[in-house]
Amino acid sequence: MFYHTKKLQYFKPPEKPDPIYAKKIQELIGGTFGEMTVMMQYLFQGWNCRGPAKYRDMLLDIGTEEIGHIEMLATMIAHLLEKAPLKMQEEGALDQVVGAVMGGTNPRDVIMAAAMNPQHAIVSGLGALPADSVGFPWNGRFIVASGNLMADFRSNLHAESQGRLQAVRMYEMSDDPGVKDTLSFMIARDTMHQNQWLAAIEELKADGLEDTPVPSSFPLDLEKREYAYQFWNNSEGTESAEGRWAKGPSIDGKGEFEYVENPKPLGPEPVPPQPDPRLHGTAKDKSLQGESGSSKKIIG
Amino acid sequence: MFYHTKKLQYFKPPEKPDPIYAKKIQELIGGTFGEMTVMMQYLFQGWNCRGPAKYRDMLLDIGTEEIGHIEMLATMIAHLLEKAPLKMQEEGALDQVVGAVMGGTNPRDVIMAAAMNPQHAIVSGLGALPADSVGFPWNGRFIVASGNLMADFRSNLHAESQGRLQAVRMYEMSDDPGVKDTLSFMIARDTMHQNQWLAAIEELKADGLEDTPVPSSFPLDLEKREYAYQFWNNSEGTESAEGRWAKGPSIDGKGEFEYVENPKPLGPEPVPPQPDPRLHGTAKDKSLQGESGSSKKIIG
Amino acid sequence: MFYHTKKLQYFKPPEKPDPIYAKKIQELIGGTFGEMTVMMQYLFQGWNCRGPAKYRDMLLDIGTEEIGHIEMLATMIAHLLEKAPLKMQEEGALDQVVGAVMGGTNPRDVIMAAAMNPQHAIVSGLGALPADSVGFPWNGRFIVASGNLMADFRSNLHAESQGRLQAVRMYEMSDDPGVKDTLSFMIARDTMHQNQWLAAIEELKADGLEDTPVPSSFPLDLEKREYAYQFWNNSEGTESAEGRWAKGPSIDGKGEFEYVENPKPLGPEPVPPQPDPRLHGTAKDKSLQGESGSSKKIIG
Amino acid sequence: MFYHTKKLQYFKPPEKPDPIYAKKIQELIGGTFGEMTVMMQYLFQGWNCRGPAKYRDMLLDIGTEEIGHIEMLATMIAHLLEKAPLKMQEEGALDQVVGAVMGGTNPRDVIMAAAMNPQHAIVSGLGALPADSVGFPWNGRFIVASGNLMADFRSNLHAESQGRLQAVRMYEMSDDPGVKDTLSFMIARDTMHQNQWLAAIEELKADGLEDTPVPSSFPLDLEKREYAYQFWNNSEGTESAEGRWAKGPSIDGKGEFEYVENPKPLGPEPVPPQPDPRLHGTAKDKSLQGESGSSKKIIG
Amino acid sequence: MFYHTKKLQYFKPPEKPDPIYAKKIQELIGGTFGEMTVMMQYLFQGWNCRGPAKYRDMLLDIGTEEIGHIEMLATMIAHLLEKAPLKMQEEGALDQVVGAVMGGTNPRDVIMAAAMNPQHAIVSGLGALPADSVGFPWNGRFIVASGNLMADFRSNLHAESQGRLQAVRMYEMSDDPGVKDTLSFMIARDTMHQNQWLAAIEELKADGLEDTPVPSSFPLDLEKREYAYQFWNNSEGTESAEGRWAKGPSIDGKGEFEYVENPKPLGPEPVPPQPDPRLHGTAKDKSLQGESGSSKKIIG
Amino acid sequence: MFYHTKKLQYFKPPEKPDPIYAKKIQELIGGTFGEMTVMMQYLFQGWNCRGPAKYRDMLLDIGTEEIGHIEMLATMIAHLLEKAPLKMQEEGALDQVVGAVMGGTNPRDVIMAAAMNPQHAIVSGLGALPADSVGFPWNGRFIVASGNLMADFRSNLHAESQGRLQAVRMYEMSDDPGVKDTLSFMIARDTMHQNQWLAAIEELKADGLEDTPVPSSFPLDLEKREYAYQFWNNSEGTESAEGRWAKGPSIDGKGEFEYVENPKPLGPEPVPPQPDPRLHGTAKDKSLQGESGSSKKIIG
Repeated sequence: MFYHTKKLQYFKPPEKPDPIYAKKIQELIGGTFGEMTVMMQYLFQGWNCRGPAKYRDMLLDIGTEEIGHIEMLATMIAHLLEKAPLKMQEEGALDQVVGAVMGGTNPRDVIMAAAMNPQHAIVSGLGALPADSVGFPWNGRFIVASGNLMADFRSNLHAESQGRLQAVRMYEMSDDPGVKDTLSFMIARDTMHQNQWLAAIEELKADGLEDTPVPSSFPLDLEKREYAYQFWNNSEGTESAEGRWAKGPSIDGKGEFEYVENPKPLGPEPVPPQPDPRLHGTAKDKSLQGESGSSKKIIG
Repeated sequence: MFYHTKKLQYFKPPEKPDPIYAKKIQELIGGTFGEMTVMMQYLFQGWNCRGPAKYRDMLLDIGTEEIGHIEMLATMIAHLLEKAPLKMQEEGALDQVVGAVMGGTNPRDVIMAAAMNPQHAIVSGLGALPADSVGFPWNGRFIVASGNLMADFRSNLHAESQGRLQAVRMYEMSDDPGVKDTLSFMIARDTMHQNQWLAAIEELKADGLEDTPVPSSFPLDLEKREYAYQFWNNSEGTESAEGRWAKGPSIDGKGEFEYVENPKPLGPEPVPPQPDPRLHGTAKDKSLQGESGSSKKIIG
Repeated sequence: MFYHTKKLQYFKPPEKPDPIYAKKIQELIGGTFGEMTVMMQYLFQGWNCRGPAKYRDMLLDIGTEEIGHIEMLATMIAHLLEKAPLKMQEEGALDQVVGAVMGGTNPRDVIMAAAMNPQHAIVSGLGALPADSVGFPWNGRFIVASGNLMADFRSNLHAESQGRLQAVRMYEMSDDPGVKDTLSFMIARDTMHQNQWLAAIEELKADGLEDTPVPSSFPLDLEKREYAYQFWNNSEGTESAEGRWAKGPSIDGKGEFEYVENPKPLGPEPVPPQPDPRLHGTAKDKSLQGESGSSKKIIG
Repeated sequence: MFYHTKKLQYFKPPEKPDPIYAKKIQELIGGTFGEMTVMMQYLFQGWNCRGPAKYRDMLLDIGTEEIGHIEMLATMIAHLLEKAPLKMQEEGALDQVVGAVMGGTNPRDVIMAAAMNPQHAIVSGLGALPADSVGFPWNGRFIVASGNLMADFRSNLHAESQGRLQAVRMYEMSDDPGVKDTLSFMIARDTMHQNQWLAAIEELKADGLEDTPVPSSFPLDLEKREYAYQFWNNSEGTESAEGRWAKGPSIDGKGEFEYVENPKPLGPEPVPPQPDPRLHGTAKDKSLQGESGSSKKIIG
Repeated sequence: MFYHTKKLQYFKPPEKPDPIYAKKIQELIGGTFGEMTVMMQYLFQGWNCRGPAKYRDMLLDIGTEEIGHIEMLATMIAHLLEKAPLKMQEEGALDQVVGAVMGGTNPRDVIMAAAMNPQHAIVSGLGALPADSVGFPWNGRFIVASGNLMADFRSNLHAESQGRLQAVRMYEMSDDPGVKDTLSFMIARDTMHQNQWLAAIEELKADGLEDTPVPSSFPLDLEKREYAYQFWNNSEGTESAEGRWAKGPSIDGKGEFEYVENPKPLGPEPVPPQPDPRLHGTAKDKSLQGESGSSKKIIG
Repeated sequence: MFYHTKKLQYFKPPEKPDPIYAKKIQELIGGTFGEMTVMMQYLFQGWNCRGPAKYRDMLLDIGTEEIGHIEMLATMIAHLLEKAPLKMQEEGALDQVVGAVMGGTNPRDVIMAAAMNPQHAIVSGLGALPADSVGFPWNGRFIVASGNLMADFRSNLHAESQGRLQAVRMYEMSDDPGVKDTLSFMIARDTMHQNQWLAAIEELKADGLEDTPVPSSFPLDLEKREYAYQFWNNSEGTESAEGRWAKGPSIDGKGEFEYVENPKPLGPEPVPPQPDPRLHGTAKDKSLQGESGSSKKIIG
């Protein structure tokens, strides 16, 4: 069960409204790696967790923190959308630009009215949306909770890496001290969360629960070991031979990397089975198709 | 530019058709972590790569290999769907089960006809679909290519971890020697690919290009460092204090983990700006809403 | 900011696992009117609320309660998926049914393995998914937070009506005492929430903030009043004349319903503008299409 | 079966083209509460209606009217897109703005070419799209037809409330007399339709068919009545106690509102079942995971 | 504007309910090539049509007819869902199968309850859904209305081809005389509609409005004519040389097919531009990345 | 299996960056008729093909070519995004426009920063995205591979028609010689591909495998032949009688077109079955609804 406190985890309001920046910052709420993703991902991982209590508790702690991050950004967006220009004055566009030179109205408003997210006016009445920076809605396929903690902590590490990268890009794209201050808190939390998932991966190994390759509980002799450390060079040129992945012991310590410079297929040409005549597909031979099954013995 | 050879990278056909298993194995083609995802993810990362040539070449090598993995699984599905039962005989369901005891027709067909993916018959005529095991289509939000190789290699490591986990689960869910043999090849390749991305992450560090936290090129003094290593215990109970993430030096070597047992908000209560009357939202006070903007000076 | 307590708001575990029921109950988590919808809808409405504090506080209270409802259902699903059968034994299907008569293995497992949500095994490892009963992911277009509280409270009333209806249907579709007990709590909460939104609608009227038609702040003389209370009978037959909507004073008390038995169009035939030749659409006349704009003066 | 007449239900053409406004008005065609939604929602409710004939007839009347509303807006968009600027002149952008001051070409065109919906040029050749104002396609999850008319009429009331709110916002965002005239007709129809659904809700009650809580046919003694009128104050502070929902008789007349100031969980801590080893999830204890099921007795 | 008549265009009710068949026939309502697609596609093409009146009128005629086809199928589904079994009796599954042999309850119901579309019970109350046979919702990206009638009539021809193929498959998958009779009407209409679009393509050519290649109004000398009739054999083996596409005059009569047996790239290796340091991507060289843009001159 | 060569099939870089054009050209990568569609469509058709080898080989040849087209456009987008302006200078917008007159910074950058696809900066770091021109992701429902080659080749013909139309529109919307040169190659390939699918349709007929109506293998006497050549004039006015589709022999040569000027329904009024009381829908009569099924005999 959950409780709410009215204060925000952290917040500095923007100094000035900016509806274009509001459009962009939606990426951090409802984008593939936005706060809705990490919130839902950690909560579902926590709820589905069957591992030791420390992992479950930790997942729910951070998932709960992330709900508050959506709240911070939603508040930010409400401020950024204040006094957003709602229309381009049709006659006036030309005049406005001329006017700008003359000391008249602000042509920035004309551009803002044209390029802001229209749903910020029409749908949400100048509030945040559960969508990304192009207006695409957040959806449940953005998250994963597999029950295997190593697989999931690697997902979490990746989400926090993409998330911090995007927050940093948003930081670079602003000059507003309030925006930058709030983002610098969120970027710091992302630093923590990258460290946290790296630490959690170490903990899983230290507990003897999971290792590389994931899932480590699957007996290795059931996979085709002879292909488990080969790099296949499927393009002409061999620049790819210069990397760590092409030679030396494998990172899992269980094999040796091998560079296959001219890979050849190991399998046969496919021999697709002939179609069921009742589905009226095209067969190799007209005699295999074309009669209605309705006058035939039914298989199913 | 790309070329095709007719032979498959590896393949053993299933011994017996099984349309339910065909439905399930769609997850490995068009699911969030299926072959369409890794293929598209590696190709877009390669096409967008501005780092050293060895990384770009390597990404395009493996992306090209993954196209062939879709091909293998599509061929597998065509075999699994052979002779799929197309209908439940309405009167006959009862009879068939009785018949089963009597040595009559196969009740397995009744179940198969009821529970197979209907689009395997109606839409694709017993061929593979670009969708997952519940029929949801693959889409472009499943992939990421950010231009930051460390962020992306962590994504790749996670995708191969979820991918191998899912392939292993499919292996466990089959008794067919052909299916198991083909999957044991794909599982081995996933072992390689997990090792490959771990190696590539090492290589990026060795090259001095990227490090933790991602992106490492952002000056740390621009983030709020005092919150960069704190674990916030947002739930009652302290099981989460038992993990590596709660104490000791941070994994990036740049700080010390701190456990905040009773976290308090650092920010104020939100003070949302009052609405624009032209958007007819509900304000604190009736006098702030309710008139049409059409009789007012227009801001925008 | 949010906090979590480990105990559930309410819960009785199911007496027996049932993976088919687990598939169905996903509708109450991730369906259009599931708990993810009401949680997100109330939180975004609260975060975007610019009305009096009592409304904002109330919205965030109930939004916070709903997070815990997802938690209850996710726990329910984990129990329902325990020991889910992971495969149909291919040879065995026939044998099993025969076997059933003989006292052998359970044919229910064969059906379950065929018809359960495959992602419950392959993707989530027997945990809940952020998706509905056919596996379609929850998405942000399921919610609304418009800034107009009357419009939104009507949305909330409708969501709780559909939600209670679906919970009741799930109740009727189960014989498990644990499932029924847990659902009977959730159904009672839905009763409260329907009453709550009806009360909140009354409160908005009592506060003089909103009324019918929504938005009430738009001056009525700006709409075409002569069409504001007409029922247009766009089909043959006049059964629709028998309802309250066809005669008597309008519900908003500002007009009189009128039944238009033989409605005629009020507008002209459309006269679409001719196409830009650079877009190579088909025009009325060949001379209006077909030249490349590249040899012409560019407008844009 | 349906018929078409060439004349529009109502229409005034816009005085001037405006491709940005055309982008925005797509919300009223293909948005969550656009005309495609109400058309499809009323038609499916009518087709699925098993209640008295007057309801079915009424639903199909209004659903049929709404097809014509899409037609009106599609015609509007074709006019608004006339002579849309198709490109920014690359060199010319600077010159144009300079030119504006000098009396040269119109910088409004530069902005329009940059910010209009690109699919209006590339995909539809200056015609309407079945999508909303950010280009997201209309989809079937936008509508509901549950078979319970009270639940559905509340949905309809909410849809017409959001719809009129959005139409009013579009009205406020335009200065074009033709656009405003056409919208003032549609806004009037939304006034009717809000009244209509309120009247239809009264009619259902008067007919003794449905009441609060929905569905009223479910015996109240099957829900946990003790929680059916409690308001849970899940956040600190008690502003939410000030509303009608916190005290007095419930709106359904069957209970008394109660304000629970410090709500406590009623349920236990979750005890998730241990995972199936064949799914290779992480268990509490290493001994519960890690062996391949392939060498074990199969449950399913 | 549109009108409705209560009678169906054509209809024979099914003799027996069948919820699995109801699930499957959803493909013909809400699938990629279902009736919602052709209805919406023809109406939008008609509304966007700027060609001669006969085309516009014809498009709106057939679009209007297709609304009635959804109506027929929705009615069919309501009948097929009558008395659908709503639950598997948990204990009883085994008993039922045994019972079947003994003359007890119908095991077909157990399978139906497990494998029917759960939303047919939970969401629509045994009514049709705007979704396909796997429950995926119809969406606006399924249709096209480009303004070029030749491009669109080819789309229409393809939609009616896929549509008739799917209707035929559904016909083959049923033994119910009512279902088959109704489908045989719809299949006949699809025969008409394939002929109609072939005729309309002829008419466009006869009117001198459009031709191959589409769009024919683009001057051919602006394309690279030397590559306009080459077949590139991008795989090993030359079976593809055996077709009409590999030799002889091109179908548009403006060139000669040429078979390129060993195609070579015509372009250079890509030389991607180096990244903007403010986006913190990985560059070829560390010196090109890693400083924060915040201490630099801003370009934008 | 597939191979890659580093050189592009064809390419001329753009002379100047243009982030708005980069946003638009995404339509040709990830739009409904973009290169991802044709690539995936031809590969899946090839993998699912059970017809003669020449068709399968041809499909895989062209599918393989199309992978390289995505590569060309992704490279184009990287060039177009070079030096994209990342922010509007908040104070500076006004100044910049004034500045433009004074010879200061470029106002084009202000517009670009406002209207470019924000994900090109935030998500992809100035690389291509698997999405269309409004940012909607490519998805698997964009393609079809039905197993019937005639149905599929008609799909391919339509895709290449829409694709060439869109490429031509992009050509008209650019003044950049590099862009135009590269597009003129792709437009030429689309000319080939339209010819190729027309040729392939001829080949299928010549081989006696498929014909009109598709699927031709379904016995015509199973459809209601009396409706197979009728045009139904579902709107007032008879402009639609003027086309080829209204009179003369049908295109398939098997019938005669007939114009039905005043079409009447052939079917009855629907008589929907009464609802199951356990689903709590609204019935004609109160006595048919309202009791809980839990106190009744369960059907299912």
